[in-house]
Amino acid sequence: MSEEFGIGLVREARERIAGMVSRTPVLVNDEINADVAASVYFKCENLQKTGAFKARGATNAVFALSGAVADAGVCTHSSGNHGAALARAARLRGIPAYVVMPSNISKIKQEAVRSFGGRIIWCDPTLASREKAAAAIAGETGATLIHGYDDLRVMAGQGTAALELIEDIPGLDTILCPVGGGGLLSGTAVVSSRMSRGAEVFGVEPSAVDTAYRSFKSGRRVTESKSDTVAEGLRTVLGERPFRVIQRHVDDIITVGEASILEAMRTLWDRLKLVIEPSGAVGYAAMLEYPARFRGKRIGMILTGGNVDVDLIQWPNRT
Amino acid sequence: MSEEFGIGLVREARERIAGMVSRTPVLVNDEINADVAASVYFKCENLQKTGAFKARGATNAVFALSGAVADAGVCTHSSGNHGAALARAARLRGIPAYVVMPSNISKIKQEAVRSFGGRIIWCDPTLASREKAAAAIAGETGATLIHGYDDLRVMAGQGTAALELIEDIPGLDTILCPVGGGGLLSGTAVVSSRMSRGAEVFGVEPSAVDTAYRSFKSGRRVTESKSDTVAEGLRTVLGERPFRVIQRHVDDIITVGEASILEAMRTLWDRLKLVIEPSGAVGYAAMLEYPARFRGKRIGMILTGGNVDVDLIQWPNRT
Repeated sequence: MSEEFGIGLVREARERIAGMVSRTPVLVNDEINADVAASVYFKCENLQKTGAFKARGATNAVFALSGAVADAGVCTHSSGNHGAALARAARLRGIPAYVVMPSNISKIKQEAVRSFGGRIIWCDPTLASREKAAAAIAGETGATLIHGYDDLRVMAGQGTAALELIEDIPGLDTILCPVGGGGLLSGTAVVSSRMSRGAEVFGVEPSAVDTAYRSFKSGRRVTESKSDTVAEGLRTVLGERPFRVIQRHVDDIITVGEASILEAMRTLWDRLKLVIEPSGAVGYAAMLEYPARFRGKRIGMILTGGNVDVDLIQWPNRT
Repeated sequence: MSEEFGIGLVREARERIAGMVSRTPVLVNDEINADVAASVYFKCENLQKTGAFKARGATNAVFALSGAVADAGVCTHSSGNHGAALARAARLRGIPAYVVMPSNISKIKQEAVRSFGGRIIWCDPTLASREKAAAAIAGETGATLIHGYDDLRVMAGQGTAALELIEDIPGLDTILCPVGGGGLLSGTAVVSSRMSRGAEVFGVEPSAVDTAYRSFKSGRRVTESKSDTVAEGLRTVLGERPFRVIQRHVDDIITVGEASILEAMRTLWDRLKLVIEPSGAVGYAAMLEYPARFRGKRIGMILTGGNVDVDLIQWPNRT
């Protein structure tokens, strides 16, 4: 790699963002452990500032900018949680944030960006449209583009969640981590591979948008997905930088079906008493789909976020 | 009082139940604090074992029994969370638990009792029917009746939540605590009044079932409520023992409307990313109804439980 990405950047990120993000709790649930015959440690990033782990990476990136550069502000394109996280970080630093969002994004995610003082620029719901609009606003304003995952400062910030988890719960066998663009997964994998008692790291992705899975298996970054998923936070493809780290440090990528995601989400709500968004439930969905793979193990699971319109959930029929 | 109830019993309870219940986290949310112009510290008893603070009192009561008495088991009548908590505590001690439940109780609360191995005895949904059925099962089996709130061991156990909260967050001005039978409120009030940096303690009750309010204001224990509430955990009247403690140590009781309870519950779900049952949301409902009373203060709020059938919630219309 031309750019170095390692645990040192994650430790620097932790110093930089301390006091601006939460050290989230790790929860254990006896009934879930009985159900899956394993010990599961839930790292509750739904309880993070802005309701998602994205606060970590965005805060690190914004506060890593030099003063003169920061003054012109920051911009990004985001399907949701990163946009809110960037708006919040920018407000903390007292600089403007411009967030390009697709017009079909859920209302709760729009409101979050606005509530932190972010300025929304609408675009069509395609990656090309998003990138073009973000480049345009960067050109007009001089704002620095902070990509949601294809950025070493962002990846390093996201890795701080795994750093805390592994410190709090020594001796994990496996960490299950949702994968969309790969920011969280790459940060998690670097941390786990470099700590003395690291765990194997599996990414988990909806099979409907299995671009990370196909990239990982083929060794070539796949940029077109074939379908759609309820897990809107994972409707994206791996960034180049995360992909390189994932190829080197991730042990496997597992795909899960839509019904499993909803069933997992519902179980987590019922058992943990936490509001989890569909993207945050894919790790538990993997345990439901492949129970033998996890039986008897100590599993760390990153619950990535809780930003969901409660009214819009199409719960599965229960018997 | 003929029986002494004080913070000493609460401290004993804490020793007794340590390791069997969770020290629940206290959460802070910047957006909520901005909304209400106060600093609110949420004590998350929805994250407690069994999904409610009731695990504290039931565990204390079950483990306070002498060996010979305990062997015959325990019984209770419960509208829900106490029954599950007692069943769990009995299982931990390896003794039977008999739980009398009204036939109209929500399915999630039935399932919880069964999941901990409790034996359910059905009764009609009246207090008289419940008490009669519980006395009958106690007579048949020799099981010890552990009342859900009119019991000093239970009250002492519930008080451990406030003990933790006040230790974690010094300098609280006010603690808001839901009140139904008064077990939690009496334990909370005794703790706060006896600690060096105690806070004033307010009970909060749905105005539709304002028996605690009327008892507190009149000095006579009111045992008939006029209506019904969505907060099913609070559909009960003050026990004699809690009432005596509440008269002496509670600063005020506030009543809240049904619409406020649902609005509060929804806001807590959206902002805190926690599943809270209606009863657990009455404290925040009080802040919504009487904002001037709490502005600028440091508020401790006990979120009492999260046992709710998600499908059955009638959310208020949002604009």
